Amino acid sequence: MILFLKMFPSNLEKLIELFTRFPGIGPRQATRFVFSLLKEDESILEELGNSIKNLKKEVTACQVCFRSMAKAEGNVCSICSDKKRDASAVMVVEKESDMVNMEKTGSFRGLYHILGGVILPLDPNSSRGLHIKELFERVKAKAVNEGGVEVILATNPTTEGDTTALYIERVLEPLKSSYKNLKISRLGRGLSLGSELEYADESTLKNAFLNRK
Amino acid sequence: MILFLKMFPSNLEKLIELFTRFPGIGPRQATRFVFSLLKEDESILEELGNSIKNLKKEVTACQVCFRSMAKAEGNVCSICSDKKRDASAVMVVEKESDMVNMEKTGSFRGLYHILGGVILPLDPNSSRGLHIKELFERVKAKAVNEGGVEVILATNPTTEGDTTALYIERVLEPLKSSYKNLKISRLGRGLSLGSELEYADESTLKNAFLNRK
Amino acid sequence: MILFLKMFPSNLEKLIELFTRFPGIGPRQATRFVFSLLKEDESILEELGNSIKNLKKEVTACQVCFRSMAKAEGNVCSICSDKKRDASAVMVVEKESDMVNMEKTGSFRGLYHILGGVILPLDPNSSRGLHIKELFERVKAKAVNEGGVEVILATNPTTEGDTTALYIERVLEPLKSSYKNLKISRLGRGLSLGSELEYADESTLKNAFLNRK
Amino acid sequence: MILFLKMFPSNLEKLIELFTRFPGIGPRQATRFVFSLLKEDESILEELGNSIKNLKKEVTACQVCFRSMAKAEGNVCSICSDKKRDASAVMVVEKESDMVNMEKTGSFRGLYHILGGVILPLDPNSSRGLHIKELFERVKAKAVNEGGVEVILATNPTTEGDTTALYIERVLEPLKSSYKNLKISRLGRGLSLGSELEYADESTLKNAFLNRK
Repeated sequence: MILFLKMFPSNLEKLIELFTRFPGIGPRQATRFVFSLLKEDESILEELGNSIKNLKKEVTACQVCFRSMAKAEGNVCSICSDKKRDASAVMVVEKESDMVNMEKTGSFRGLYHILGGVILPLDPNSSRGLHIKELFERVKAKAVNEGGVEVILATNPTTEGDTTALYIERVLEPLKSSYKNLKISRLGRGLSLGSELEYADESTLKNAFLNRK
Repeated sequence: MILFLKMFPSNLEKLIELFTRFPGIGPRQATRFVFSLLKEDESILEELGNSIKNLKKEVTACQVCFRSMAKAEGNVCSICSDKKRDASAVMVVEKESDMVNMEKTGSFRGLYHILGGVILPLDPNSSRGLHIKELFERVKAKAVNEGGVEVILATNPTTEGDTTALYIERVLEPLKSSYKNLKISRLGRGLSLGSELEYADESTLKNAFLNRK
Repeated sequence: MILFLKMFPSNLEKLIELFTRFPGIGPRQATRFVFSLLKEDESILEELGNSIKNLKKEVTACQVCFRSMAKAEGNVCSICSDKKRDASAVMVVEKESDMVNMEKTGSFRGLYHILGGVILPLDPNSSRGLHIKELFERVKAKAVNEGGVEVILATNPTTEGDTTALYIERVLEPLKSSYKNLKISRLGRGLSLGSELEYADESTLKNAFLNRK
Repeated sequence: MILFLKMFPSNLEKLIELFTRFPGIGPRQATRFVFSLLKEDESILEELGNSIKNLKKEVTACQVCFRSMAKAEGNVCSICSDKKRDASAVMVVEKESDMVNMEKTGSFRGLYHILGGVILPLDPNSSRGLHIKELFERVKAKAVNEGGVEVILATNPTTEGDTTALYIERVLEPLKSSYKNLKISRLGRGLSLGSELEYADESTLKNAFLNRK
């Protein structure tokens, strides 16, 4: 690796290079990671190495919501199979971390649907890997078989998130026309905790006014 | 002034000291202000000096909403006397800059009420200078004489702002009981433009869910 | 002023505009300045206004080093006329604030020369307003009449500062050839307090090595 | 792990926890690492896992300077065994990354000595793991057997780095008294590239003046 002038042993340079694949990690921090690992006990390196090697062997995606789950648990995750949760509400999020943050609030007791990414406004292929078709089928089944269903589009309030929400709304449009018990909503926009009117952007301020209550 | 080791002529040090009264300005930036003024033409210094000296002589507060206005304009400001604005909606803000930012959105066409500050949770005297009594009378008059009135409490979503809004709600409570055409609302809380669910605080995320639409 | 949608009385908008001439101050902070002034007593506004109006009337530049000084003090500043300071050392700085910061260290006991700006590498006219000719004459007089003289070029270690120092070195070159008692030096480059080798730029690290002691 | 409310499969939580051992990595970024790994091919996970597991098996420390080196290379690293480098200069650094950054400048052509840490001013035991005794022996051998030797103490200009350099100077003091061909130096302090006199701390400015040249 030219970057380091071949100053480190080749296996260190290899590992540094692998760490730069991690999100947000450049060569300098990757180097720090490697030198911190050199100070760890062999047992920790063994454990970390095996955890990484076996990561995908032990994990699968929930067949309903696409959350990560242990293969040992079966096909459906603990949230989807929890009878105490409200099966009539499905919150659609971009990724698992968003779901985790929402769970922490304790305010939502329904189910989730992990899209696995967002649609990029200028890339028509960017919808491909997303679990949108599965969402359609899941919502349709609920609309047909269950009393009612609310789909909460909880994508980020960013250009990509809004594009994705809009796309999903169009996909679900036929269902909405056919099934009156299907409701589609979006997370509320407005002032976030600790923000100030003087510095708020126009869109946020407008939404805060329109969504007053 | 010990701070500068008496290194500048006394009138410069005096002016530096005066500039440190400006919000957010420390001695270093105050010093830069003074040296930048030394490079200005006499005519600019004359104009700036006179503008400051005459500032309060030419300005008064609107007798209705407490906005700053030119004395030459009379007693009531241009917004309060604008017949095209919706007199049945009064947005209560902490300070004029908040009003200016809201005006930029173009979404609110009612009137304003400038409180002139906030209530500090631990300081019972902090409500004194605020135009809350005047708000009460203004709202009462509207409830009695006009068809209906909505008071939008648009204080900041901060501890002080929330304390202030709560205090005003209590003050207006008797009016609300007597006049059914009086409605009190608050700006909507939720996700602001460009924020991300993964990093949103719990309160904001909870509000975004509860205020979904 | 379009910026503010004519929302403030015209004299406030005028004053806001004047404050945006201050270094680093945009319309938003200028607005805060004006509203904070509206809360000051008339006596403070009077004092501030007069200080600004009289600023240049009471201040002049030292005829030797070009520091600001009170007209009442005469023609030569307190440092230049201080017999206890070392007249054989002249530190050349870009602006007065640099001199003030150096004085705080208490390590330099010589005299200063304020250039009044820097030379921009791509602008041949940028040397015009600087007190370089006066530096030449001052240094020449010292070389001729006094035992020895050291000129310390204390411009910033930036592209502009380095260009300026280089330019001055060329200007002083003829003097240096003629007068062996003239020494020209520059501030030392190296690691600053609290910095880290791991993050230091190459130039700084190289200088730290070459200037080791 | 309480932190994540048991929301992820246990092997994911285990791996997240292991990643939080990395320097500067909190639970949130550790989570991102894990989810980014879930998107990698099995072959990358295999490679990364094995690289970590074998890290210490393939690497050893140079017996002379304590740099990391491949076991396959022998006992002495490529720099220590490079005949073209100046064996009379030994630069003492806190850690390998400091050495790498210095090598990038291309200005130092001597040898290095990796301390492996710093001495904490309030912890008398913190000198224990450092390669100071080995430095003493290495320098002594050079002083006895070679023409001359310069030890450049290149610890960081921080409290810990300065404490460490001072400690080493005391350790080497007896050698310095006995061998006149032993020189001890420190990296130069002064203004770093791009800094400004107006904002420089007093210590840096004082050093920049004293180290002028």
